[in-house]
Amino acid sequence: MIEKKRVIIDTDTAGDDTIAILTALHYFQVEGITITGGNVQFDQQVENALYTIEVAGKGGQVPVYKGYERPLMGLGEKEHRTVEDVHGKDGMGDSFFDKAIQRPAEGHAVDFLIETVHKYPGDIHLIAIAPLTNIAMAIKKDPTIVPKIPHLYIMGGTNNALGNITPSAEYNFWVDPEAAKIVLHSAIPITMVGWEMCTEYSIMDDTDHEAIAALATKGSKFFTDINQVVMKFNKSVHKLNGTTHPDTLLAAVAAKEEIMTKSNLYHVDIELTGELTRGYSLVDINNRLERKKNVRVCEGIDRDAFEAMLFDVLRSIQ
Amino acid sequence: MIEKKRVIIDTDTAGDDTIAILTALHYFQVEGITITGGNVQFDQQVENALYTIEVAGKGGQVPVYKGYERPLMGLGEKEHRTVEDVHGKDGMGDSFFDKAIQRPAEGHAVDFLIETVHKYPGDIHLIAIAPLTNIAMAIKKDPTIVPKIPHLYIMGGTNNALGNITPSAEYNFWVDPEAAKIVLHSAIPITMVGWEMCTEYSIMDDTDHEAIAALATKGSKFFTDINQVVMKFNKSVHKLNGTTHPDTLLAAVAAKEEIMTKSNLYHVDIELTGELTRGYSLVDINNRLERKKNVRVCEGIDRDAFEAMLFDVLRSIQ
Amino acid sequence: MIEKKRVIIDTDTAGDDTIAILTALHYFQVEGITITGGNVQFDQQVENALYTIEVAGKGGQVPVYKGYERPLMGLGEKEHRTVEDVHGKDGMGDSFFDKAIQRPAEGHAVDFLIETVHKYPGDIHLIAIAPLTNIAMAIKKDPTIVPKIPHLYIMGGTNNALGNITPSAEYNFWVDPEAAKIVLHSAIPITMVGWEMCTEYSIMDDTDHEAIAALATKGSKFFTDINQVVMKFNKSVHKLNGTTHPDTLLAAVAAKEEIMTKSNLYHVDIELTGELTRGYSLVDINNRLERKKNVRVCEGIDRDAFEAMLFDVLRSIQ
Amino acid sequence: MIEKKRVIIDTDTAGDDTIAILTALHYFQVEGITITGGNVQFDQQVENALYTIEVAGKGGQVPVYKGYERPLMGLGEKEHRTVEDVHGKDGMGDSFFDKAIQRPAEGHAVDFLIETVHKYPGDIHLIAIAPLTNIAMAIKKDPTIVPKIPHLYIMGGTNNALGNITPSAEYNFWVDPEAAKIVLHSAIPITMVGWEMCTEYSIMDDTDHEAIAALATKGSKFFTDINQVVMKFNKSVHKLNGTTHPDTLLAAVAAKEEIMTKSNLYHVDIELTGELTRGYSLVDINNRLERKKNVRVCEGIDRDAFEAMLFDVLRSIQ
Ligand SMILES: [Ca+2]
Ligand SMILES: [Ca+2]
Ligand SMILES: [Ca+2]
Ligand SMILES: [Ca+2]
Repeated sequence: MIEKKRVIIDTDTAGDDTIAILTALHYFQVEGITITGGNVQFDQQVENALYTIEVAGKGGQVPVYKGYERPLMGLGEKEHRTVEDVHGKDGMGDSFFDKAIQRPAEGHAVDFLIETVHKYPGDIHLIAIAPLTNIAMAIKKDPTIVPKIPHLYIMGGTNNALGNITPSAEYNFWVDPEAAKIVLHSAIPITMVGWEMCTEYSIMDDTDHEAIAALATKGSKFFTDINQVVMKFNKSVHKLNGTTHPDTLLAAVAAKEEIMTKSNLYHVDIELTGELTRGYSLVDINNRLERKKNVRVCEGIDRDAFEAMLFDVLRSIQ
Repeated sequence: MIEKKRVIIDTDTAGDDTIAILTALHYFQVEGITITGGNVQFDQQVENALYTIEVAGKGGQVPVYKGYERPLMGLGEKEHRTVEDVHGKDGMGDSFFDKAIQRPAEGHAVDFLIETVHKYPGDIHLIAIAPLTNIAMAIKKDPTIVPKIPHLYIMGGTNNALGNITPSAEYNFWVDPEAAKIVLHSAIPITMVGWEMCTEYSIMDDTDHEAIAALATKGSKFFTDINQVVMKFNKSVHKLNGTTHPDTLLAAVAAKEEIMTKSNLYHVDIELTGELTRGYSLVDINNRLERKKNVRVCEGIDRDAFEAMLFDVLRSIQ
Repeated sequence: MIEKKRVIIDTDTAGDDTIAILTALHYFQVEGITITGGNVQFDQQVENALYTIEVAGKGGQVPVYKGYERPLMGLGEKEHRTVEDVHGKDGMGDSFFDKAIQRPAEGHAVDFLIETVHKYPGDIHLIAIAPLTNIAMAIKKDPTIVPKIPHLYIMGGTNNALGNITPSAEYNFWVDPEAAKIVLHSAIPITMVGWEMCTEYSIMDDTDHEAIAALATKGSKFFTDINQVVMKFNKSVHKLNGTTHPDTLLAAVAAKEEIMTKSNLYHVDIELTGELTRGYSLVDINNRLERKKNVRVCEGIDRDAFEAMLFDVLRSIQ
Repeated sequence: MIEKKRVIIDTDTAGDDTIAILTALHYFQVEGITITGGNVQFDQQVENALYTIEVAGKGGQVPVYKGYERPLMGLGEKEHRTVEDVHGKDGMGDSFFDKAIQRPAEGHAVDFLIETVHKYPGDIHLIAIAPLTNIAMAIKKDPTIVPKIPHLYIMGGTNNALGNITPSAEYNFWVDPEAAKIVLHSAIPITMVGWEMCTEYSIMDDTDHEAIAALATKGSKFFTDINQVVMKFNKSVHKLNGTTHPDTLLAAVAAKEEIMTKSNLYHVDIELTGELTRGYSLVDINNRLERKKNVRVCEGIDRDAFEAMLFDVLRSIQ
């Protein structure tokens, strides 16, 4: 039997984060889940992560650590907007699930990250499906972890395409652009799956949802529940006919890189100071700036393979 | 006989600007050509415009006015980069044509613009295929021209796509973003054709060039000459297999709006202060910012119709 | 008899601008007055300038040209704040004087500036007591005037001191920082008198006002009238016990440079992009940036000499 | 006997930091010293702090914790400039002292800060004489420490005066403006002593240095040694005739607030995005912005009292 790779998932658990967690729990040895400020109220996110572990039947087996509740430069109420309009008040499609039995682990997410990387040098892959605050802060607190992290998979940014939270920016990078900049400049090997990959390859329309419902598993039921609000939001705001699964797509790419049909190494950087472009991700496809190529950018996905993975995950959760 | 619409062309004449001028001379009553700083040395641009009029057989019939030689905030040598690498040293594919007989008109481009708009209120359409310095300065000097301009066609910016001079910006908007901002906020009705329209619909590959050469007119010979450098540049820098015709595409759209197969009214704005994004054009497709929709953005072109127009123009120049 | 120097005064005529105009009319051959957007409604400023000429007994002898009504990047209502709170609704201490007989000259201020500089090359000194929009636009429209301008005196900015309109910026530079930047980088020889010179050396307290009133001339009466509002404003906002005379101080320095007891040539630049510091004037006293020294900055005034000049001016207007 | 107040000193130990540490050790119960990136190479700073404790005769009694070696947004080599030109290659006036016996404590400065504040809630005063990276990071990692910190004394910024590292910024705020912003917005009660207080009240000229040398103590000898380089630097760069003691002045103010002859509560904020003004500290003396008054700004010092304190400290170190 092949041993599963060790990962830590950093998440602002709401909506698609949960399916990404289920996917990661399916394909990886998940050492822990760290929570960072983002989608909805922080403590709700923590509960969502704990509940999702329970859904996967792994309650008590995967520790959940609380991390930074707000972005680096989130001063007072400024610059941190939660998105209950996208994911529902509870971030779970207004499902208002019961509280999980498992409680958060003691200690700060950033210390857990640092210690675990040092404990398994070269073995801990990071799956980042949230603003990059926790990961940036780990790098800043202990830069010696950098060479010990083999790969970091990031859902975030756009590759010369329309953003989601503003026209110029994707939500995760927009919430904490300083953190994104720190991480992108860290020299950790990175794969980035941008928002446009999600709108092009991850959408599940009504037919897909019916097929998923037909699985009639605990996993498929959970999928249906948590996607109730985002379906409506996508139709009205993004003019997208279905639910979007950026975090699950990222987790799937991390699990099976071969579902990426196209990717290239580019220089990627983050705008901090623009009046209209804070959080914009520059992807220098034609190498006009002649700067260091620091990120492998996903540019194509085998949609069928991705869908098959998603179905496998949901089918397996009985 | 239908009377032709009156236009003024504002251009930094080099490369494709010349074919756009030929196109405009073919379809419009061109009241004058104004030159703004951009592609190559200013005086060379003036000569290129004069020569192009001569090629069209209209020497002495269309006045050429010198305007602003540098962008608004072009201080010293800062922030104005000419692009002889794209268009050749003379901006004409290194053709080094003889000087035209016609000389520039007396007076400043901006005063010609203001006077002509007042002379024919509601009749002067503007075709802008250069940094927007002249047009912005006309608006600032005399804001009363604004309601008298029925439409302004702009080649510039990108619609959520890769730029050409930097990853985040298209050349015309990047050279003078302050001017672009002034123009976009002016309340003049605007149609914008971005760089991504050009790369998607205007490219002429080797086969197209052969077909054009086969026309064996003075027009087709001129087309071949001035495109010698840009063909190589596009292959090596933009990974594009052919020559690009952004300005001609814009002139064609102005002449026959029906070749636009798709367009929408969006809020468009320009980033001035970004460290990575100066000159970036924000196009708010999903109306996330809920701001005034100020620009009709071209999103699709009937390529065959465009090509037919180009061939008509080149064929007609004997 | 010594011939007076030729000057053009650029002004947003309200409050102390009027006394500066009287001062300039006293000491110089004033070729014209150009009006730029600033203190109060533009047309009111034009009337204020015309009225002031009449007060000086020179009605019809000094042309007044209308220039730019708004700053370069003043888009819609953004970024141009008038200050009727400082100068009264009419900019004249709520005096609501009758309209002058003289009317504005035909033509745009910027063209008058350009033509006059070319007419008297090397002879036209500029006195700038307003946002620098007109002067910047003249330089941009015709850069060949630069070497023909012997000196430009500017009231604006601060020399490492508290601003007046914001903590970091003085009003004239803050209204149109882009214009200020264009002018400071133009290579015209410049003397700058900052706001802190005004608060340190130009304040007229109650005793001074009584002495001025005692002159009992038309000039002294006018001075008393137009200073009615600013006296209260200074006490409540700037904690200054008296009226401030930045523009008159500048005009006096231009007329008699020897009243400057201290001045040095420094590198001066303007911040455009700061979130808190737009319009801030950097004065590099210790040459830390090692950039071109472009401005002679006034650092000390002979207060008695200045006061004597003011009294001479007001006394002479019978 | 009155119990001494508990403090933690955060320092980038070089030059005057050492005398500030001696001052704090004299007047306070120093719970620990935390080191942050700044003046010179990080490990050198750690050694300088350890050595200084030894000079004070307290080797092994006061723990020294290593903190953040670089500012928050210090990416690669960008934006962190050490200043060996000011303080000598070793930050100790090129004295190259022997290594102290005491070694740094285990654990990260930020965790020591958090734990100690929680251990003595309401009792730990912070003395910050370095870039504010460590303190900002403590606040971000555990915002619950904020209400438990009674006061934070900061040497940093300027109050509408010339900076030292750039014309617009003081070194500590310039090195890590994001950290400064986080700290200033934290709601911790703050007293700020800016660079202009230092140049106005803390300078020790040749006569002062002779008087200090005449003390002929270990303390006075140390003072003489570490000030060898800065004396020359100040004369050539800042045109100051003597050594500057910003950090010692801050420590003295913290120890005896009554040496402040003038201070006021103002709104203070930090510029992050300016092209010329990154790290500029806005001090809104006239409350023009009508924002929250968050910092007590020192505006006057009893120089004699300060000097007496310094002499007491140096005399006491035998
Ligand atoms: Ca997420
Ligand atoms: Ca062009
Ligand atoms: Ca004025
Ligand atoms: Ca220090």
